[in-house]
Amino acid sequence: MEQTGRVYKNGEPKTLNRERKKSVRRNSKVAKENLPGPRQRNPNDPKRKKQPLQTTGNIPEHFPKRKRSRLVAKEELYSMSNEPHGHCLIINNFNFETRTSLGNRRGTDKDKDELIKVFNKMHFEVEVQDDLQASDMQRFIKQFAEKDHTQMDAFVCCVLSHGEKGTVLGVDGKQVAIRDLTQPFAECRTLAGKPKIFFIQACQGNVFQEAVCMADGQEDGTKEGTDEKDAQTATDQSIPKEADFLIGMSTVEDYRSFRHAEDGSIYIQELCKQLVSGSTRNEDILLILTNVNRIVSSKDLKGYKQMPEIRYTLTKKLVLPMK
Amino acid sequence: MEQTGRVYKNGEPKTLNRERKKSVRRNSKVAKENLPGPRQRNPNDPKRKKQPLQTTGNIPEHFPKRKRSRLVAKEELYSMSNEPHGHCLIINNFNFETRTSLGNRRGTDKDKDELIKVFNKMHFEVEVQDDLQASDMQRFIKQFAEKDHTQMDAFVCCVLSHGEKGTVLGVDGKQVAIRDLTQPFAECRTLAGKPKIFFIQACQGNVFQEAVCMADGQEDGTKEGTDEKDAQTATDQSIPKEADFLIGMSTVEDYRSFRHAEDGSIYIQELCKQLVSGSTRNEDILLILTNVNRIVSSKDLKGYKQMPEIRYTLTKKLVLPMK
Repeated sequence: MEQTGRVYKNGEPKTLNRERKKSVRRNSKVAKENLPGPRQRNPNDPKRKKQPLQTTGNIPEHFPKRKRSRLVAKEELYSMSNEPHGHCLIINNFNFETRTSLGNRRGTDKDKDELIKVFNKMHFEVEVQDDLQASDMQRFIKQFAEKDHTQMDAFVCCVLSHGEKGTVLGVDGKQVAIRDLTQPFAECRTLAGKPKIFFIQACQGNVFQEAVCMADGQEDGTKEGTDEKDAQTATDQSIPKEADFLIGMSTVEDYRSFRHAEDGSIYIQELCKQLVSGSTRNEDILLILTNVNRIVSSKDLKGYKQMPEIRYTLTKKLVLPMK
Repeated sequence: MEQTGRVYKNGEPKTLNRERKKSVRRNSKVAKENLPGPRQRNPNDPKRKKQPLQTTGNIPEHFPKRKRSRLVAKEELYSMSNEPHGHCLIINNFNFETRTSLGNRRGTDKDKDELIKVFNKMHFEVEVQDDLQASDMQRFIKQFAEKDHTQMDAFVCCVLSHGEKGTVLGVDGKQVAIRDLTQPFAECRTLAGKPKIFFIQACQGNVFQEAVCMADGQEDGTKEGTDEKDAQTATDQSIPKEADFLIGMSTVEDYRSFRHAEDGSIYIQELCKQLVSGSTRNEDILLILTNVNRIVSSKDLKGYKQMPEIRYTLTKKLVLPMK
């Protein structure tokens, strides 16, 4: 098909009007395969050799109108043209202060390592901050929101920690509202119109403890509360009112967020796996996260379930390119 | 390419192993164009005539490995095989009781008409309920959640009304929590594993009134509150903890939801337009809603902005077929 597309381009009579040429390009595999964005055509490109004219039949017959696929317009796709594409801040809380009576988050380094690997492959400049107190988390967030992202395409922040309703915890056990992590980036001018992506791995609410698979909440064995009115959604008020935000939460309310002491958390591990395979295929991130939803929610975690949730105000298709 | 695909199928030597056959099918435009879902092959299908073998060149050359596109597996795509695909309940509140001092929602019938048209085209069985009191809204929701959806693929509910924080209003001015609209469907066994889709057109929070473009809140001219803590997100607790929910909200917190007295609401009108054009191209609904986000949020509404928001626990790609 690629070959056929080329033949059309080079072989078609110049008398063909512009309209016809366009329709051929639009349907060519070359154009489709090179998503995101239309292929930049360079007449000096050594790879684009002229091919002898082949028998291809009548053009409209090959490309009937109803079958024409639509190339995503530039305005409908977030630009990913810079190198690197952006900063990726990973806040990885493992070692909780003894006085908090919060257990260490065994397995979180496995998550961290996977995230570093994946976002490096995706051309992001990764910075990891381990074991931050609540005030330090806010300080780093502020620092990143105040950076100049002019030469960047996007921003990514991953938070791996314990959590309570609508919040994540510093290693001092103090809460940081998820909204306080996201909102500073809504006010960052150099990120305006660019995707701001947050992945939050943390239990939201009450607790379940198990020797191997642990919940990312307070590890004191307290059982889940029953007052439903009290059970706020993890993502309550987490998304700013501005455009271009994407928040992937490891869990909706009531469901727990599971982490394996050796293999890392169910959510982050699956997220990384799907980001790699999906991005390699130039898949839209929303579809990738749908796949994560399916796989995570289908797991039976010792009788419990985990249901991730996505919230977005994205205004364009988002494809994170993979090296 | 379609022709070529057929030729491969019928013309290829029987000695080709299954692996090779598969790779050809996967790459053929036939397969790709017939998304969603792999094409059902029926050897008796009268349309599938044998074609003479054509010069197609070397197969691997035509379909180099790196160019192979991936067909969405059945397990990754919601089935849309029934006729009709499902019920679509539209609750359309126009005429608010005088004692509520809520204005009539002029233009809402335009939204209703568009939604009927679109979901009819999408093979949904549309039922409209006009001017419901809060208790009647809950009654109809319950009625639909108790229906037998065994022969259905999905469920859609559109609510057009005034709203307050996290709620929509009956024509008697009483609130119905959005969560109370969605939750009954989480408990509906015959909808398990099927997409449950909600579109909510309603202002959430405080109010703005304008002669032509009106906010979908209390139309008493009260200005927006300033207590940010009080400004709950429209979608707070709106999504059940179960899988396969999609909620499209006309607005996130603080932003108003605009409706034109003659042309209908900005959100629903754009939603309908994008559903038609996107579904005709077999586009994923999340991408369609991203387009709605972009277009609605780019509008300058007399100095105000409107930012829709999507929340989902979908576990598969969702493509609503269009007649």
